[in-house]
Amino acid sequence: MTRIIGIDPGLASTGWGVVERKGSRLRCAAYGCITTDKSIPHGERLLRIYSGIQEVLARYEPAAAAIEKLYFARNISSAMPVGEARGVLTLALVQAGLCVYELSPDEIKTAVTGVARADKKQVQEMTRLILGLTDLPRPDHAADALAAAICAVNKTIAR
Amino acid sequence: MTRIIGIDPGLASTGWGVVERKGSRLRCAAYGCITTDKSIPHGERLLRIYSGIQEVLARYEPAAAAIEKLYFARNISSAMPVGEARGVLTLALVQAGLCVYELSPDEIKTAVTGVARADKKQVQEMTRLILGLTDLPRPDHAADALAAAICAVNKTIAR
Repeated sequence: MTRIIGIDPGLASTGWGVVERKGSRLRCAAYGCITTDKSIPHGERLLRIYSGIQEVLARYEPAAAAIEKLYFARNISSAMPVGEARGVLTLALVQAGLCVYELSPDEIKTAVTGVARADKKQVQEMTRLILGLTDLPRPDHAADALAAAICAVNKTIAR
Repeated sequence: MTRIIGIDPGLASTGWGVVERKGSRLRCAAYGCITTDKSIPHGERLLRIYSGIQEVLARYEPAAAAIEKLYFARNISSAMPVGEARGVLTLALVQAGLCVYELSPDEIKTAVTGVARADKKQVQEMTRLILGLTDLPRPDHAADALAAAICAVNKTIAR
């Protein structure tokens, strides 16, 4: 069995999703979201994201991790908090000894839908079908994280 | 005595500088640069920045830290690595229990030169004069970090 965690980084909301592969079957082991309120100091928010993902890693013990390579932010001010969250998340993954796959949005879309230009809804619906879930994972960040995990699971097969 | 560390974050090169205030006199206690080579895996680079700043904090035991709030990157792709470095640096500062001042470039320039529109050279030259250094600190990242520390020292006086 291979267990992989996908992560969709964000300062206010970081989605995560754990996908397991047994033979040719994929299964969603768990998913969730680490949220931080903007009323707490900036550094504390990063600490919560870091501690939050460490708890998830300790609980589900994934063998590898997938995290999106690029984030298309509206501007640099909005890219900065995503970068900071991504930094502490990547640090936690490396400290836990995980192999980290940095995936482009196109790679993830292609892996899940077969099409690089698929829209968000298509990716989420295919993620639901691939994992045999009755409902779409909520919030969106968790669904996006599961899509990244599926993409990385396929990579581990390909290796 | 108040001892403050200033940090100029970057994935390839993170400058740091420790400034001490004794009465009305400011002194440079130490400065340096944490560099990471792009040949090593991305996550490892973040880990080195994180461990590197932890070593500096353990050695100089500053009471507070100053870090630039915004970075004017050319584009989002170049802002992302700075954000990641900034994330792991801020995490290390918060974990060490430091008060973190997030300063805008204008605040730093005004604190050091009296003018928000001062250019990089003016800021560096004033930093050298304020700290009574014979030579300009090198590399630039270290000089910028010392300027941030001077700005934060003034803030602690004002409090």
